[in-house]
Parts: sequence; structure tokens; C-alpha cells
Amino acid sequence: METIGFIGTGVMGRSMAGHLLKAGHPVIVYNRTRSKAEDLLALGAKWEKRISQLARQSDVIITMVGYPKDVEEIYLGENGIVNHAREGSYIIDMTTSSPSLAKKIYEAAKAKGIHSLDAPVSGGDIGAREARLSIMVGGDRADFEAVMPILSLMGTNIVLQGAAGAGQHTKMCNQIVIASNMIGVCEAMAYAKKAGLNPEQVLQSISSGAAGSWSLSNLAPRMIAGNFEPGFYVKHFIKDMQIALDSAKEMGLLTPGLELAKSLYDTLAEQGYEECGTQVLYKLYESQG
Amino acid sequence: METIGFIGTGVMGRSMAGHLLKAGHPVIVYNRTRSKAEDLLALGAKWEKRISQLARQSDVIITMVGYPKDVEEIYLGENGIVNHAREGSYIIDMTTSSPSLAKKIYEAAKAKGIHSLDAPVSGGDIGAREARLSIMVGGDRADFEAVMPILSLMGTNIVLQGAAGAGQHTKMCNQIVIASNMIGVCEAMAYAKKAGLNPEQVLQSISSGAAGSWSLSNLAPRMIAGNFEPGFYVKHFIKDMQIALDSAKEMGLLTPGLELAKSLYDTLAEQGYEECGTQVLYKLYESQG
Repeated sequence: METIGFIGTGVMGRSMAGHLLKAGHPVIVYNRTRSKAEDLLALGAKWEKRISQLARQSDVIITMVGYPKDVEEIYLGENGIVNHAREGSYIIDMTTSSPSLAKKIYEAAKAKGIHSLDAPVSGGDIGAREARLSIMVGGDRADFEAVMPILSLMGTNIVLQGAAGAGQHTKMCNQIVIASNMIGVCEAMAYAKKAGLNPEQVLQSISSGAAGSWSLSNLAPRMIAGNFEPGFYVKHFIKDMQIALDSAKEMGLLTPGLELAKSLYDTLAEQGYEECGTQVLYKLYESQG
Repeated sequence: METIGFIGTGVMGRSMAGHLLKAGHPVIVYNRTRSKAEDLLALGAKWEKRISQLARQSDVIITMVGYPKDVEEIYLGENGIVNHAREGSYIIDMTTSSPSLAKKIYEAAKAKGIHSLDAPVSGGDIGAREARLSIMVGGDRADFEAVMPILSLMGTNIVLQGAAGAGQHTKMCNQIVIASNMIGVCEAMAYAKKAGLNPEQVLQSISSGAAGSWSLSNLAPRMIAGNFEPGFYVKHFIKDMQIALDSAKEMGLLTPGLELAKSLYDTLAEQGYEECGTQVLYKLYESQG
């Protein structure tokens, strides 16, 4: 079975790498903070303290890290993956990152005979744990098919969306929908409260009709209960929206809803809510009262 | 069985009154345009050309008309319902209308011993046809319970949301969620197209996760197909958003997402798209290209 190098063992990466191990793949892990990889090491993963070394030993390299700048450094830096991975190996960035960076990595990899795919996911920590992620892939079809058995260990809805960058573009579509929908959900819940309604009862009337959405069913109840624990972090959502805004700008597309959402979340971040879940947007409205 | 006066036999009102007739209620109908009531007359409804006369003969009066100004005139005008309905009768406004007007009608009715409920619906023409509407009710509990057998002939999810006006407030919550979500759906679909993705394939990746919503599943495919036929008219959505904005302003609540949606739909109306379905918002983004 292919040896898989896995970089980035945060909450999601840890679950994802765990599925690969359990399926019998030798897995080599790297993470900035080693303690976050201990669970995987206990399951039989091998620790590697240098990315270049990890790259040399792997048939397939998967990354699940933080920001585009991390992705860029890990792939394109002097000691990075593209400089050290074997010819014929596969590299899969599952971080939500920039579509244009994905294309850049694809080109650099191709020049070295390395197969590159961008494959961001949705489904959150629960989807990762249950191996039920939606995986949006950009790259060459032959490469997509070659790694399909591996992607299938982590997700259930796996779609090749187009050439390099298309996976990231698709993830941006996902985040763009969520951005404006969060505003609608929060404004409605704040309106309900201000009007003296029982917000839970309002949800009973509106959740299953044309206003219905995942966010309304899953996040509105948390807002009402004052539960702002992170499912999805404000700081990560801001990162994603910035990528989407940059990308829309590059394409000459105006996205006023996305801009509004980004500005509201920036305000939340300034107020110290970066480590909360995205449903904390509700506080911005509630605090008007 | 109670005689029901039904005012407003448009697409939805016609279906709703039809269910009452089929259940065996004597139904008296009034509509500005008589031709739109012909179906019901053929089913046995009685035509009445004056609202005052209709009111005098009815145990229960239901209205499903257009704008708050119509509601105000029909209920509070000199020849209107409140002046002519019998003491002890029930009046139910199912139009999406202003919460403060609902309270005003309730007070005026109460002074005459008439039971008033506001009971706007969601579910559209299909929900009306299939008697599967969500009905959001404001008023007194005893009145709600008294007319429950009648409301049950038209809907399946029937909730008393609070005192007079609470039904309208709840409907505003519904429209507020939809307003911003429509922006997100349109921006994502426009982004997908601009990025050279296959929008249908994008939906396959994002529809069942955290971006999922009724609008994404039902309206995005119509946008992609260039189908802008009305399910829900732009002109009616603009009316609803105006009511919600006025109501939010009265309560001192800022709703920037709703304001943005209203301004985008106003632009559409200026461009002549008032008679299209709300999914036509996509055109505003698409036309940027």
C-alpha cells in the first residue's frame, strides 16, 4: 500500500490521517506542534521532523494546514514538498486555500513530474471523524482517479470539479453561500428576539420551508442557547472569505454580500471573537439592543 | 358548518378557498377581478360584490390579498370588514402584511367583539395547492384554537407565535433569512460561472453540506437553466422586505443584509424584472460579465 505523508494534524487532519492508518497505509506525519500528532503516533504513524524528509519517503503527500502562506511555504519553499517529493508521486492539498496558488503549485509540480491536486473539503470536524467529507477536487482526471481510493477513505461526496484550482474555486462557492446566509439567519433571530417572539418557536415555523438551511437548523439553535463554541472558527472563516474576495476581484466579479459578511466578521474579530464559532455573528446584532 | 367569507382569490387564495369548499364549508368569495374567482364559483362558492355584505353573512372571514394598504382598506375602511362583521365572528388575515397593522386591526376588531388573527403563510402556490402551508399565527389562544379546524384544511405546520402581530413578525423572520440567502446563492453561482466551473457539478459538491438550503437546492438550478419564471414574484418580495425593514426600524434593529437585498431587488425592479421569480437576482451578477 502507498506510503502517505500527512502534514497538518489539527482537529480535522488528525481524523483524516487516522482513517488512512486504519485502512493499512503506512503514514508519516509532520505537524508544527508535535503534541497534536501523538494520537496518530500511538496508532502507528511515524513522526518526521522535516518536511523535505517526509516528502522523499512518501508516495502520496496530503496537506491540511492553516493559511495560504503556510501552503505556499510547505509546497514551494526551498525545503518544501515540490523540491523534495519523488518524481511520479502525488501531492494533495486539502487545506482551503487560494485557487491561484493551487494553479501555481500544480505548474511547479508538473515541471518536476509530480502529480498535484487541490482537494479542499467541507463537513467540518464531524465529517472528518465520520469519513463523510465532501471533497472538491481540481487537477487532472488521471491523477484524480489514481488517488480516488485514498480520498474515499476520508469522504463520501468526492467530485472532480475541473482543472487545477477548480477544487478551491468550488470551496469558495461553498463559503460564499454560507457568508450571506449567516447574515440572514442572524438578522432573523435578532429580529425574532427584538419582536418578543420565542425564537425556538419561530424556527418551528420557518425551518422546513423556503427559508430552510443547514445554518438555520444547526446554528440558529446554538445562537439562541448562547452557545458560541467553535464548530467552525471565526478566524478561519475570515481567511476563507478573504481568499474568495481576492479571487472574485481577480475575476472582476462584484460580491457585495460577501463583502458585507467579511466586514461584519472583521468587526467580530476586532472585538475578540476570533476563536468563537461562526454563529457568534448573532452577538453583533443582539448587542444592538 | 361555519360560513366562510374569502377575500382574495389569486393563485394562492384560490387553492386555499378550494380546500374549504371541498371540506363542506359554505364559502362566499370576493375578489377585485371576478374572473379569478370563476373556478371557485363553479365549485359552489357564492359571489359577493361588496365586502360589507360578505362580512355580514360570514362566521369566519379570511383575507389573502396584496399589499398592507389593501389590508388596511379591506379591514378598516368605512365599508370594510371591522365595520360590518358580526359580533363574535372571526377574521383571519393570511396576507403577508405589517405587524403593526395587524395589531391595529386586532384592537379595532376587539372593540367590536370580533376575534382577529394574523396568519401569514409560507409554502407558495404548491404548498397552497397541496394544503401543506406553514401558517404563522398571532392573536389570542382561544381564537387560535377555535379556528384551528379551518386552518388545518390549508396547512400542516400551524403555530401560534404569540399575540396579535406575532404571525406577521414570524413571517418577516422567514423573509429576512431568505433575503440574504438569495444573495449568497446568486453570488456563488455567478462566481462558479466566472471561474469556469460547471455550476451543476458545483451544486453536487455543496448542496448537502453546511452551504445547503432550500434556495440552493430549488432556485440555483433554475438560475443555471435561465428559468426566471415566478415561483415567488420579485414585486411581492420587495413588498415583504419593505415591511420587514420598516418593522426592524421601528424596533431599532439594524439589518444591513436585508437592506442590501432590498436595494439589489429595487435595482432589478427598475430594470423591469418585477414580474419574474426571485431567482432573477442571478441576472444582476451575471450581467457584470
